[in-house]
Amino acid sequence: MKKVMNDPATVVDDTLAAFALVHHGLVRADPQYRLCLRAEPLPPGHVALISGGGSGHEPLHAGFVGDGMLAAAVLGDIFAAPSSDQVAAAAAATNTGAGVLFIVKNYTGDKLNFRVAAELLEDENIDTRVVLVADDAALPKTDRGPGRRGTGATIFVEKIAGAAATEGRTLMEVTELAQRVADAGRSLGFALTSCTTPMAARPTFELADTDIEFGVGIHGERGRSTQPLTPSADLASQIVDLLLEDLQLQPGTPLLVFTNGFGATPDTELYPFHGDVCATLQARGHDCVRHLVGSYITSLDMAGASVSLLPLDDELTRLWDAPVHTPTFTWN
Amino acid sequence: MKKVMNDPATVVDDTLAAFALVHHGLVRADPQYRLCLRAEPLPPGHVALISGGGSGHEPLHAGFVGDGMLAAAVLGDIFAAPSSDQVAAAAAATNTGAGVLFIVKNYTGDKLNFRVAAELLEDENIDTRVVLVADDAALPKTDRGPGRRGTGATIFVEKIAGAAATEGRTLMEVTELAQRVADAGRSLGFALTSCTTPMAARPTFELADTDIEFGVGIHGERGRSTQPLTPSADLASQIVDLLLEDLQLQPGTPLLVFTNGFGATPDTELYPFHGDVCATLQARGHDCVRHLVGSYITSLDMAGASVSLLPLDDELTRLWDAPVHTPTFTWN
Repeated sequence: MKKVMNDPATVVDDTLAAFALVHHGLVRADPQYRLCLRAEPLPPGHVALISGGGSGHEPLHAGFVGDGMLAAAVLGDIFAAPSSDQVAAAAAATNTGAGVLFIVKNYTGDKLNFRVAAELLEDENIDTRVVLVADDAALPKTDRGPGRRGTGATIFVEKIAGAAATEGRTLMEVTELAQRVADAGRSLGFALTSCTTPMAARPTFELADTDIEFGVGIHGERGRSTQPLTPSADLASQIVDLLLEDLQLQPGTPLLVFTNGFGATPDTELYPFHGDVCATLQARGHDCVRHLVGSYITSLDMAGASVSLLPLDDELTRLWDAPVHTPTFTWN
Repeated sequence: MKKVMNDPATVVDDTLAAFALVHHGLVRADPQYRLCLRAEPLPPGHVALISGGGSGHEPLHAGFVGDGMLAAAVLGDIFAAPSSDQVAAAAAATNTGAGVLFIVKNYTGDKLNFRVAAELLEDENIDTRVVLVADDAALPKTDRGPGRRGTGATIFVEKIAGAAATEGRTLMEVTELAQRVADAGRSLGFALTSCTTPMAARPTFELADTDIEFGVGIHGERGRSTQPLTPSADLASQIVDLLLEDLQLQPGTPLLVFTNGFGATPDTELYPFHGDVCATLQARGHDCVRHLVGSYITSLDMAGASVSLLPLDDELTRLWDAPVHTPTFTWN
């Protein structure tokens, strides 16, 4: 796949600079540490939410910096964790004294570097907590190994914890809520194509014209199986049933349903597929009360989609609906 | 290219139904006439703005239905004009008595069917006007033939005329302003790949791994030339210089700069390219005072981008900035 670019080595810096130019009322860039920061300081006493990770998943995370979500996003290279120095700089730049919550997708490099940053920040008397998002139901639940990957539920955590922080809750309260959302969310995705990284001339893997990769992550890696492409409704049933088996919900549970495009899948595929997902959920006795459809956690130019579910209660619904003002989400 | 779908024949209907489900507070669907309508009626005395055309360009136009932009979007089949009956039904459903403005991209089928609808509506005493958008600088200015295609400037017209209609201006005033914006906007695009329609098993055209198609439209058709893929900064200069030659601006003109993705181009390509476009414009003595970056007028799953420019004055800037609340644009 061809790419519009100048130099693979500057893609992340160029993206950050242009992002800050376009959204200059909402965010600002720290080019030295590759941070996307709120344009205005947080109100005094508010917990600062920070997320980050490898680039290539845009608009995650920079698109969610602003009022009601993140205080900062920390940008690694394409599909590579940011350094602990970058994370620590983001915390130092945004801490109001109320402490900092790191929202970390469960990948070895991210986990390590956010934890090292937390240790560095202890010396500066900045109080930090880490919430791990490990929602990818494509991988088995297990206590051994690296565990499940962090994918779509990351947005649930960032939005809901962001609303709680905006209410002025303490670091402990925001952390507890964020972990509850992270634990309750589940995702499952599939790819029609692999992605191509700026460094590479070719897709990471090849798929036959009639096949999809089922249970993929967000780094162009292979999934848990290759299977024939089935009609949208069949694929939706397959995914919903696996998610429901994993979640073990009570019938009638109200759900937030998020159909995420991986980058190259148009609305004429995403929306009908989301319709099929919701029809299956309704048929299984569940209530789709909130919806999100769009390419929000991408894998560069990969074609495909993932479905993420979050069981809602009154508090989570209210916090999901709470005002947000970021480059990507704006409501109320 | 593979597609997530059930049946090519139901893609447009399935997309509309799911779109209305997801954005149910803002829009509602009329499945019979394939309309995406405001959820709430327009305030009395407000001019109704209606646009539409072939599907496959999502979020255009349904994503721009709501407060401050369109009253309705009329959906044709993929890349095919809607019928005059559909257009007339949209006008009848949204007219408050203040009349209806049709914002029409300059394609033969759309132009014809919107005009036939205007004639049908005369019999119902609904006052209509048509504004043609023909901003694609890839084609020569000429009085003969079908003229230039309507592309990126459509969004400028819909947003600015929508703000004017929201202020309660008359049909004549809104039409005059909309035509002024349509005439002032210019666009130019390029493709790295063709798109694949749901009916077809293959891309509309093939391109070598090192080539781009320059001066493309939004229907997967070939452009005005095939050329080697150059670095982003060179491509940006080439496009900006052609647009400026066409526009003949005074130095220092404030500009709204819109970099549009055609569907499969990720933020890590769109934003750096937008940065290069703005750097070139600044170097040529122009001021980039407003920005829009995203995949808003797509060509299904085509990879590539277009640049649209609109010279701004105080009035146009104010109307661009005016509040808008639609599925795709929300500000203020």
